[in-house]
Amino acid sequence: MASNSFGNVFKFTTWGESHGKAIGVVIDGCPAGIAITDADINAALALRAPGRNPYTSPRTESDKAEILSGVFEGKTTGTPIGILIPNRDADSSKYEPIKSMLRPGHANYTYLEKYGIFDYRGGGRSSARETAGRVAAGAIAKKLLEHHSIQVLAYIKQISTIEATIAASRFDTLHTLTYDSPLFCPDADATATMTALIEKAKTEGDSLGGVVEFMALSVPAGLGDPIYQKLEANLAFAMMSLPASKGFEIGSGFGSVTMPGSEHNDPFISDSDDVKTTTNYAGGILGGITTGMPIVGRVAFKPTSSIMKPQQTVTTTGESASFQLPVGSRHDPCVAIRAVPIVEAMVAIVLADALLLNRCARQ
Amino acid sequence: MASNSFGNVFKFTTWGESHGKAIGVVIDGCPAGIAITDADINAALALRAPGRNPYTSPRTESDKAEILSGVFEGKTTGTPIGILIPNRDADSSKYEPIKSMLRPGHANYTYLEKYGIFDYRGGGRSSARETAGRVAAGAIAKKLLEHHSIQVLAYIKQISTIEATIAASRFDTLHTLTYDSPLFCPDADATATMTALIEKAKTEGDSLGGVVEFMALSVPAGLGDPIYQKLEANLAFAMMSLPASKGFEIGSGFGSVTMPGSEHNDPFISDSDDVKTTTNYAGGILGGITTGMPIVGRVAFKPTSSIMKPQQTVTTTGESASFQLPVGSRHDPCVAIRAVPIVEAMVAIVLADALLLNRCARQ
Amino acid sequence: MASNSFGNVFKFTTWGESHGKAIGVVIDGCPAGIAITDADINAALALRAPGRNPYTSPRTESDKAEILSGVFEGKTTGTPIGILIPNRDADSSKYEPIKSMLRPGHANYTYLEKYGIFDYRGGGRSSARETAGRVAAGAIAKKLLEHHSIQVLAYIKQISTIEATIAASRFDTLHTLTYDSPLFCPDADATATMTALIEKAKTEGDSLGGVVEFMALSVPAGLGDPIYQKLEANLAFAMMSLPASKGFEIGSGFGSVTMPGSEHNDPFISDSDDVKTTTNYAGGILGGITTGMPIVGRVAFKPTSSIMKPQQTVTTTGESASFQLPVGSRHDPCVAIRAVPIVEAMVAIVLADALLLNRCARQ
Amino acid sequence: MASNSFGNVFKFTTWGESHGKAIGVVIDGCPAGIAITDADINAALALRAPGRNPYTSPRTESDKAEILSGVFEGKTTGTPIGILIPNRDADSSKYEPIKSMLRPGHANYTYLEKYGIFDYRGGGRSSARETAGRVAAGAIAKKLLEHHSIQVLAYIKQISTIEATIAASRFDTLHTLTYDSPLFCPDADATATMTALIEKAKTEGDSLGGVVEFMALSVPAGLGDPIYQKLEANLAFAMMSLPASKGFEIGSGFGSVTMPGSEHNDPFISDSDDVKTTTNYAGGILGGITTGMPIVGRVAFKPTSSIMKPQQTVTTTGESASFQLPVGSRHDPCVAIRAVPIVEAMVAIVLADALLLNRCARQ
Repeated sequence: MASNSFGNVFKFTTWGESHGKAIGVVIDGCPAGIAITDADINAALALRAPGRNPYTSPRTESDKAEILSGVFEGKTTGTPIGILIPNRDADSSKYEPIKSMLRPGHANYTYLEKYGIFDYRGGGRSSARETAGRVAAGAIAKKLLEHHSIQVLAYIKQISTIEATIAASRFDTLHTLTYDSPLFCPDADATATMTALIEKAKTEGDSLGGVVEFMALSVPAGLGDPIYQKLEANLAFAMMSLPASKGFEIGSGFGSVTMPGSEHNDPFISDSDDVKTTTNYAGGILGGITTGMPIVGRVAFKPTSSIMKPQQTVTTTGESASFQLPVGSRHDPCVAIRAVPIVEAMVAIVLADALLLNRCARQ
Repeated sequence: MASNSFGNVFKFTTWGESHGKAIGVVIDGCPAGIAITDADINAALALRAPGRNPYTSPRTESDKAEILSGVFEGKTTGTPIGILIPNRDADSSKYEPIKSMLRPGHANYTYLEKYGIFDYRGGGRSSARETAGRVAAGAIAKKLLEHHSIQVLAYIKQISTIEATIAASRFDTLHTLTYDSPLFCPDADATATMTALIEKAKTEGDSLGGVVEFMALSVPAGLGDPIYQKLEANLAFAMMSLPASKGFEIGSGFGSVTMPGSEHNDPFISDSDDVKTTTNYAGGILGGITTGMPIVGRVAFKPTSSIMKPQQTVTTTGESASFQLPVGSRHDPCVAIRAVPIVEAMVAIVLADALLLNRCARQ
Repeated sequence: MASNSFGNVFKFTTWGESHGKAIGVVIDGCPAGIAITDADINAALALRAPGRNPYTSPRTESDKAEILSGVFEGKTTGTPIGILIPNRDADSSKYEPIKSMLRPGHANYTYLEKYGIFDYRGGGRSSARETAGRVAAGAIAKKLLEHHSIQVLAYIKQISTIEATIAASRFDTLHTLTYDSPLFCPDADATATMTALIEKAKTEGDSLGGVVEFMALSVPAGLGDPIYQKLEANLAFAMMSLPASKGFEIGSGFGSVTMPGSEHNDPFISDSDDVKTTTNYAGGILGGITTGMPIVGRVAFKPTSSIMKPQQTVTTTGESASFQLPVGSRHDPCVAIRAVPIVEAMVAIVLADALLLNRCARQ
Repeated sequence: MASNSFGNVFKFTTWGESHGKAIGVVIDGCPAGIAITDADINAALALRAPGRNPYTSPRTESDKAEILSGVFEGKTTGTPIGILIPNRDADSSKYEPIKSMLRPGHANYTYLEKYGIFDYRGGGRSSARETAGRVAAGAIAKKLLEHHSIQVLAYIKQISTIEATIAASRFDTLHTLTYDSPLFCPDADATATMTALIEKAKTEGDSLGGVVEFMALSVPAGLGDPIYQKLEANLAFAMMSLPASKGFEIGSGFGSVTMPGSEHNDPFISDSDDVKTTTNYAGGILGGITTGMPIVGRVAFKPTSSIMKPQQTVTTTGESASFQLPVGSRHDPCVAIRAVPIVEAMVAIVLADALLLNRCARQ
């Protein structure tokens, strides 16, 4: 029930506000024996860092995560892994002028309604900075999955109206193409067009939405649980907990609506002692449990709520006001790009949890 | 972690297979003092019953739920509410010929991979019959919400390529229009077109997908939790746990991707001491917590997997086979229609849970 | 959080009131492949049934449990196991005269304070009848443990001032001695003395307390979890959730208080490739995790609260009153005896849960 | 399920090893609006610090906890409260000579059996140092309870064979007497005798057990939950999760076993519009729910496992060995004393959780 925790067996809890002293994450339930270092965590964090490309927020976070517990002589011990990420470069003074205004598209109003108090500096707890903890936990989950030969990947599928063509199907190729793109988009042509769009939005002080697609390969059949802990339900739960996400699809997703059943049902075939399907509209999951085919899904992200244009709003005391972000504010014209490694982390975490829990399925 | 339970404070657990002796649900954490009767439960179940319209499965379930505990002198007592629904009309013999075949689009393969054993009769545990328990729990959740003046509704927004126009915005009107339609679609013209499509699919032994839209009105601001128990995350978790669901959206959903932030951010205004927004692309939720505006979202359902057309598959021992449902099998050409009251129930359950949990938000 | 559920992976939920239509239990998370029948459940229930010996309550419950789901062709399928036990012989009329009186030692006052409503008939939800569900779940847990060669047993260690001498240490002998005694006491001499005491209490309309000792043998080292899910913490949680339990001990228990550390620390020795300890004051657990030595603990049960003597009390409206159970009321002079199979069931459940969860301890 | 978390609504997670870089705690679910400072936390930690009296371990921990999140402008915000306590004075080198020996009464053997790896330095995760996080969480829980006028207290009831006489019944007096004693024992005469015993044990390199009694006053009737989340079950779960605890009692506890029911049942009386009982053998709880009378219970702690005497053991490779703590090792002759503020913290946490959860009991 704790609203700051995620997972069943492989479970983590994040804490911290954007402009507080630090943020952190505790991973509880991580199996013993996984080799992990501070460097592994920081490499993962670097991918989501602003400044990796010119179109994400210029804040120089230079996160330096430190593993404070749960790892001994380079390996996890089964005890909780506490990771600390100090906050730096947090100038809260610029938030003073707008602290009594409801920020359109942001959560300061709703937190105030719920709790009666809100640390407004930098978005406080509702800041996307919280996702650093997810990425750290995801780095460990990925190590576990790698040990079991499971691969996960996320990439930009769409920005605004521009949709990428995903030509590759092999993990290695797709991975290289994705990380070669400053936008994490494995389609170079689309990357160019998207870049122009983002440049334009940035100039106009506006923002764009995007779709992140995720994939998991070499997942054995039989993972996941029926009914309420369906793998796709847990993936949706994970993705809809991300800041700015507005939609989730698995496999054919909303596209399935206009398909006839005779086309949508993936036919089963035998393939060298393995059962496969000739198509994969299911997205690798049937009845909440994996089929052994690739897991594929998508997450929709709204255009970044922080824009430089003035916006109509009211103050916390109900007076009309014009909301204007201070000059020099961080401004990330397309939040979907930074979401890519976070989506990847959450997929890894959901799968790691399912992998462990599945060990209890039989006598 | 239990995969057959849902909810935090207002929590329920379902059990039972399609062709077992009975199915049931236990609601644990329901507050004391709610007036509820067997008739209330059965009225809710009747809405999802096949046979309500000619386009849903002809099985005459005639469910008769009985409250066996947790209600005394007509009111809930705070103790667990056990509800039993006996199974009838379950002729399992017709499943014999196909019991060793993997059913395309179904879960018998994945259950077998996970557990090594599967009660294949009528789809066993993976049957949509499980959702009766959700509807029963939802009927009680709705009573609690009504007590707090919160209204929930779901309806058909789209079937195959036909999209309904939702003209009404008042709950009462929308409710009446929805329940006047045999398809739960508040647009009479669309209902007619959809009916023709369904009729055609039925004749062809094929099936259609659909979109169910849900709505919650008069929800106070401040409900829901930040980070991992975001209200939209819990709604997504609920909806993606439904059989045949392939996608979930809140507010603008996937449509937000092509909008600029300057348009998508809902401007705040003061409205007679209340804070409102002039648009509601957020779908009534910011940062996981309600704004007080209507909660609106959508769920995509794939075309029914059970079709009368022959399909390619393999047997459990890996031989190629042609899968053919026996003549006279139940066949529901559009599962989205029956999903309407189930979506409504899950929305009610998620909100009831959030309503209760929110009482712990302040000292 | 659900207050009517117990367990993590091997989890069950009970429902039902003493004089309602039925009671039941749902076991969720039971692994697939366990052979179980109605007869197995009913054999376990028979042991806790009143009427097994002349000193327990004369109500002829003649429980007939029926497995309604989760078992197919004689084996568990991994889906939830729903078990129903209809209530019979429930004459509620005799409770009418005392329904507005606070029952000393009972929970009707506290339930009323909490919920504002109480099904007083036969003690309602607070009746020990709820424990039938635990015994049913325990019967399945025991099957799982047996598959892994783990043995559990409980027996009467003390009634009032009479303490039994436990001479045997082999499971089989102890088991036979226990079940040969109408009081579940493996010491025949003590059984005789205890019987006389109980007879006297019964004649006087009074009641006696007792201590139940439990034991688990052949438990592998390494089960259980550190810190908050320590095996002894889960055992204590289980035992203190039993009606009438007032205390819990593991190993040396309260007796450890007067021992010096140099005596209490169990010395480790090597025994044919196994590590053992020469004494077992730890009770088979160190730091929450099993050592491989026998798990031993004890539970204190207060004297039955239902006595035939008149007692001082007040009514629900605050007036002084004399409380008198109606002539012919059920009256169980020593609740500890009936608690024996329930304690045994709870030990089995806690161990089954730990056994499964332990599969996630390593990469 | 996470084994390093405790609580339902008011939930916390601890992390960290004795000789790692730091330990910490995250409190998730703490209501907004509670005034709390670093100083409050550190004052609570000081009470459990070694060095408060000459009979606890001489390690100069000088803990300096820092609140890193969840508090804004001096008040809790409803977001998770991250607290960090750096480790100092941790010389691990002295553990080198004994790192491959099973420590009698300790958990290094069981952790190794479970995880295959163990951070042996200073007892690693199994060190009582973990309890600092509990005390920090308890300090916040107490603030919440104080706001609702609930008082909690723990004190030494017995050390070895010496039992204290608890003469006072008023909270203030008892509190003063307790904190005036270097042993947290409100009986000055007993304190003197116990001191002599401890002095002797220390000289002999041996250790003593003890009983801590706890009390909660002004608790409203109706808190707690029936069946599995009974308040006494949660208290037992909390207490048996403490290092070195071997037993738990509520109210009359094991003493109830030799009482007749006619004496044990607490008679209800009316007292100026309040319902009370003339005795309190129940310990303030009936059926898992509070009666409004004082909650009273006891926890048994075994004699400290770390003693200076040589002990028989085996190495991790199975050879016989003599275990001898290095000269100058920390040595706490009676762990029960340091447990007093920890027991108090756990009582506060269990009650805070019950207080919040109780808000969901009625419609």
